[in-house]
Amino acid sequence: MLLVGLSLLWQAAAAEDIKSPNGQLTLSFNLQGDGVPTYRLTYKGRDVIKTSKLGLDLKNATALTSGFAVAESKQRSFDETWTPVWGEVKTIRNHYNELAVTLTQASTARSIRVRFRVFDDGLGFRYEFPRQPKLDYFTIKEERTQFALAGDHKAFWLPGDYDTQEYSTVTSKLSEVRGLMKSAVTGNASQTPFSPTGLQTPLMLKSPSGLYINIHEAALIDYSCMHLDLDDKNFVLESHLTPDAVGDKGLIQTPAQSPWRTVIVSDKAGDILESKLVLNLNEPTKFKDVSWIKPVKYVGVWWEMITGKSTWSYTNQDNIKLDSIDYTKVKPNGTHGANTAHVKEYIDFAAKHGFDAVLVEGWNTGWEDWFGKHKDYVFDFVTPYPDFDVAGLQQYAASKGVKMIMHHETSGSVRNYERHLDAAFDFMNKYGYDAVKTGYVGDIVPLGHHHYDQWLINHYNYVLEKAAEHKIMVNGHEAVRPTGLARTYPNLIGNEAARGTEYESFGGNNADHTTILPFTRLIGGPMDYTPGIFQTRISTFNPANKSFVHSTLARQLALYVTMYSPLQMAADMIEHYNEHLDAFQFIKDVAVDWDDSHVLEAEPGDYITIARKAKGKSSWFIGSTCDENGRTSNVNFSFLEPGKKYTATIYADAKDAHYENNPQAYAIRKMTVTRKSKLAQYCAPGGGYAISVMPQ
Amino acid sequence: MLLVGLSLLWQAAAAEDIKSPNGQLTLSFNLQGDGVPTYRLTYKGRDVIKTSKLGLDLKNATALTSGFAVAESKQRSFDETWTPVWGEVKTIRNHYNELAVTLTQASTARSIRVRFRVFDDGLGFRYEFPRQPKLDYFTIKEERTQFALAGDHKAFWLPGDYDTQEYSTVTSKLSEVRGLMKSAVTGNASQTPFSPTGLQTPLMLKSPSGLYINIHEAALIDYSCMHLDLDDKNFVLESHLTPDAVGDKGLIQTPAQSPWRTVIVSDKAGDILESKLVLNLNEPTKFKDVSWIKPVKYVGVWWEMITGKSTWSYTNQDNIKLDSIDYTKVKPNGTHGANTAHVKEYIDFAAKHGFDAVLVEGWNTGWEDWFGKHKDYVFDFVTPYPDFDVAGLQQYAASKGVKMIMHHETSGSVRNYERHLDAAFDFMNKYGYDAVKTGYVGDIVPLGHHHYDQWLINHYNYVLEKAAEHKIMVNGHEAVRPTGLARTYPNLIGNEAARGTEYESFGGNNADHTTILPFTRLIGGPMDYTPGIFQTRISTFNPANKSFVHSTLARQLALYVTMYSPLQMAADMIEHYNEHLDAFQFIKDVAVDWDDSHVLEAEPGDYITIARKAKGKSSWFIGSTCDENGRTSNVNFSFLEPGKKYTATIYADAKDAHYENNPQAYAIRKMTVTRKSKLAQYCAPGGGYAISVMPQ
Repeated sequence: MLLVGLSLLWQAAAAEDIKSPNGQLTLSFNLQGDGVPTYRLTYKGRDVIKTSKLGLDLKNATALTSGFAVAESKQRSFDETWTPVWGEVKTIRNHYNELAVTLTQASTARSIRVRFRVFDDGLGFRYEFPRQPKLDYFTIKEERTQFALAGDHKAFWLPGDYDTQEYSTVTSKLSEVRGLMKSAVTGNASQTPFSPTGLQTPLMLKSPSGLYINIHEAALIDYSCMHLDLDDKNFVLESHLTPDAVGDKGLIQTPAQSPWRTVIVSDKAGDILESKLVLNLNEPTKFKDVSWIKPVKYVGVWWEMITGKSTWSYTNQDNIKLDSIDYTKVKPNGTHGANTAHVKEYIDFAAKHGFDAVLVEGWNTGWEDWFGKHKDYVFDFVTPYPDFDVAGLQQYAASKGVKMIMHHETSGSVRNYERHLDAAFDFMNKYGYDAVKTGYVGDIVPLGHHHYDQWLINHYNYVLEKAAEHKIMVNGHEAVRPTGLARTYPNLIGNEAARGTEYESFGGNNADHTTILPFTRLIGGPMDYTPGIFQTRISTFNPANKSFVHSTLARQLALYVTMYSPLQMAADMIEHYNEHLDAFQFIKDVAVDWDDSHVLEAEPGDYITIARKAKGKSSWFIGSTCDENGRTSNVNFSFLEPGKKYTATIYADAKDAHYENNPQAYAIRKMTVTRKSKLAQYCAPGGGYAISVMPQ
Repeated sequence: MLLVGLSLLWQAAAAEDIKSPNGQLTLSFNLQGDGVPTYRLTYKGRDVIKTSKLGLDLKNATALTSGFAVAESKQRSFDETWTPVWGEVKTIRNHYNELAVTLTQASTARSIRVRFRVFDDGLGFRYEFPRQPKLDYFTIKEERTQFALAGDHKAFWLPGDYDTQEYSTVTSKLSEVRGLMKSAVTGNASQTPFSPTGLQTPLMLKSPSGLYINIHEAALIDYSCMHLDLDDKNFVLESHLTPDAVGDKGLIQTPAQSPWRTVIVSDKAGDILESKLVLNLNEPTKFKDVSWIKPVKYVGVWWEMITGKSTWSYTNQDNIKLDSIDYTKVKPNGTHGANTAHVKEYIDFAAKHGFDAVLVEGWNTGWEDWFGKHKDYVFDFVTPYPDFDVAGLQQYAASKGVKMIMHHETSGSVRNYERHLDAAFDFMNKYGYDAVKTGYVGDIVPLGHHHYDQWLINHYNYVLEKAAEHKIMVNGHEAVRPTGLARTYPNLIGNEAARGTEYESFGGNNADHTTILPFTRLIGGPMDYTPGIFQTRISTFNPANKSFVHSTLARQLALYVTMYSPLQMAADMIEHYNEHLDAFQFIKDVAVDWDDSHVLEAEPGDYITIARKAKGKSSWFIGSTCDENGRTSNVNFSFLEPGKKYTATIYADAKDAHYENNPQAYAIRKMTVTRKSKLAQYCAPGGGYAISVMPQ
């Protein structure tokens, strides 16, 4: 009787299914052929991921890809609701069924475990490497995780690259990737594309039958970042990890685990945007005190440098050495943006309009030759230029109730940053800065490392931990794309890791860029996109720069809602806001933390309309962004509280607005709405709209 | 008239000679062929370095090897006497004639300068890269400095290697190097030999005509360490720099300079040992306060681990993670050397016999799997094992007037060390440690870097600077070989960087090892050789270890004089000293800092006899070491003060002593000596003697 029971368990484990809580997703695990672990995922009976292999190749050791038997398999269900420190919703339900299969490889006496979690909105799975006599330390040669797709899906993709995500999204069939790769790899300050069919995650896919599928990873800790290699004959994606300086793809000490590999799926595009799967697969924070972590709406001395109107550097001298230059004896260039008087204007503006903080870039010495030199000692992070009165400005800002945001550009010289980290954070504490924007522009120094290899991943997380010790929030630019780590490190309040608004000054983003990013980059976490550019024609203030923002002014407002972030910048210059204070009112009003969010309309590459309820308030904010074709958005206000009346202020494109030739044509109107109201709102090409909905 | 003057200057500069102050050395600079810079060095009219090319290959840029014209040449003389913080002599004369030739490469509009300094004991020269519009940052592909020798010299050489110097010296003709290379490359914890004729510096040579020549470098700062590639057809050595992870050999930002390339030469071997050329070519220290830097004679808990009698680790558990292991819950192995009771025995012993300090290795957590795993977070440098009472021991040692010496093994994980450096040095300050032995055993982590590449050179110097901020002295093991940097950083009181006494426990050093090291490794600076092993048969206390020390006991005493170091260990265990307290008296008496030194006899590979006068005292100490053949040493006491009588205590090999079969046979006798005395003293095979000479 006992033997029969064991036998049944064995059979159940070698090929075993689990379903999502709502029963719509089925995950099948199976050992095939010579003990090759595989999985398959279906949604409402349709293949999302066809039978796909699992495993890893090791350096100088037997591959963990075959020869396995199932030693044990365990199922469990989990259902809890947790409260994020900040977020799109007040509470998040983490509800899944789990299957953990322990596999033993007889030839090596090694075992690994594959843990699957099936949620209503998708699948997460990871490799676990238990502590064991025959597997203590090992080096990953390559992870061999397949995602076998059911067909030639439409993909919203970026070229796979070890060093940058700052590419324009290409929308094409998977079969067209190879032909489009060359033109997709545009120039960047540091870039290492690796394959004619290499892709980045989060990868957004749409099947011919209308399934929306997103592939990414969650909880990237002490492991290298995953890309995907596309087999464009069979439409099989396979994991491709970022190598280190000697080509290794990760040094692992057991017990350990890979990040989660995630597949979000639905037949409704909006469900992808509402998924909290990636967050749920991260560990709860261990921070005991999170009271110092607060969403931030800010302005700053930044766009004027990005657009070429002013400079980060204080002089025009090249070839400087921080330990020998005396800035008081060098001729200033007269174009330095971060000067005390100018920063005070921004502090005044922030105080007047209720912003939390002012970011200032170019405040510290070293900007004269910070880039592209592979310079080790490039910044010290504590020495202001002579015309930046750090103590005086801190006092001035504090007297106005405004915080200053620190900027730490590392130029990719990570050893130098770590050497100065304690002093830099002490400096921030001393001068009252509680948030830092970090930057990793250019090749990683020492050369040979990549922005996304394990050594760098560990660096970014080290910075987060050190920052937390100093109660400092971090907004990491050019760092690895986020993977929901903000659940564990809620002081990670922002990341760049995609083409942000800055590219509007470097030739421009595609007009549909913001209809895609929430489906791709934002799946991992918030982006410091820096919206709010009112003067979209850069040549009006810098004639040398012919770039323009591929958006109408009204759509710039919408982004505060559609591009969720607890860190939102009003990125334009004071003078441009002063020209449109009526439209600026939306930026002043819009919340940066939320109790609830609803995706009202969504189709990747075409449009997104989202409504969000401000944290602890009854007011709602709606944003809508569309592509270059324009459209009419249809909104149903049924999300509003029953029996309540609201005043909706609609910031919309004028009828003749167009992102190219008439971007500043907008109209503001007010109307009373209830939960029974409906709205058909025109969006211009490259346009959109924003609505504030205040209870009457 | 002016034109004529310029013309003369031009001609004088394009081929120009300078002589040493005493006129015996001549340095000739010449531009040959297509503007190829060359130099030549003669000594008493004999070629030391035949006409040899100078220059560098750059990455992605025109080589700085030809196409030069002389833009300017300047000569000057320099003569000063300076006082080292510690040393072999009280004051050092820095006396040279200098030629600085500025070369312009018309095709690139770049200029470099070659600066030659000719001393009575040799030549130093370096490349200087002035700040200039066309040369701000550049990457060295290879330095192309030649040392064209006059023939097939006898060489005392180590295989060139990017990661270790811990090879036995091979004595052979240069023409024999290639054939001997394979057997010369013995196993090491980290090693990267690079060429069948690659050699290390300091390279000691003896010409068939009896010229002694030493080639090394001085002031290795922000540059990669130089090896030598031998052209064994023409006996031309050429510089070979250590590459970084991508094969680059140095990133330079102007203004900058290479280290000095040094050629010490004499027809008397002892002059090589007495040369202060390498120190003189380093910059004076910038430390304002050096009062905290003191020579140290110490004992320690070390040899017992090296020989396998006890362990660094507290448990026998493998695969540990510092952030999760709870040592109070793990079973101790019972063999942990660094336990409180045992360390107290060493403190007692040090106090009783007048030693300054006690080194303890294995005091801190992490030793269970510290090696060979390429582990990043391998040590934290501040957490003692449960049985090491850091505070109690510090109090105990202080009450006895004894210092504790810290040990920081990094396992080559340099980022991890830098991350913990401030905390580790704060910890040392808190617990009264003022000296640290650092270690870099195993491959550098992150992989791809080498112990001697520019990134690591900068690391070692960073540690020196941080240590100085904390008033901490540094003794760096497995770090790069020293290049006289102790003049600039006098807190660098020791280095390993060669096969030390530890190798006597790993199979043994050659019996002539200590007759060579002062001519090779010690040219760059002192070595923490850890002499004083009285029980040379390791199997007497660890039967599993069949190694024995290739030295008689008497010779172990001699090393305190012949192997100059301001840091000297009595490396054996207490019980072995207690068995020979009469011989131990010499170790107790011998000084570690000196007013004067005289090389009485010397021939590399055969014997060295040196007399030194204790700092601020009238006592002298003499040491003599010989090779495996034994000999009679002849000493003339003419260095003693006129009219004074001294008691000489002679610690000599017994007649039947032999390093292999009768190492502990010694005889101690006393005699009165004056400056007119002479002594013929027998040295056994692998033996030597020591003499203390105390004024009566």
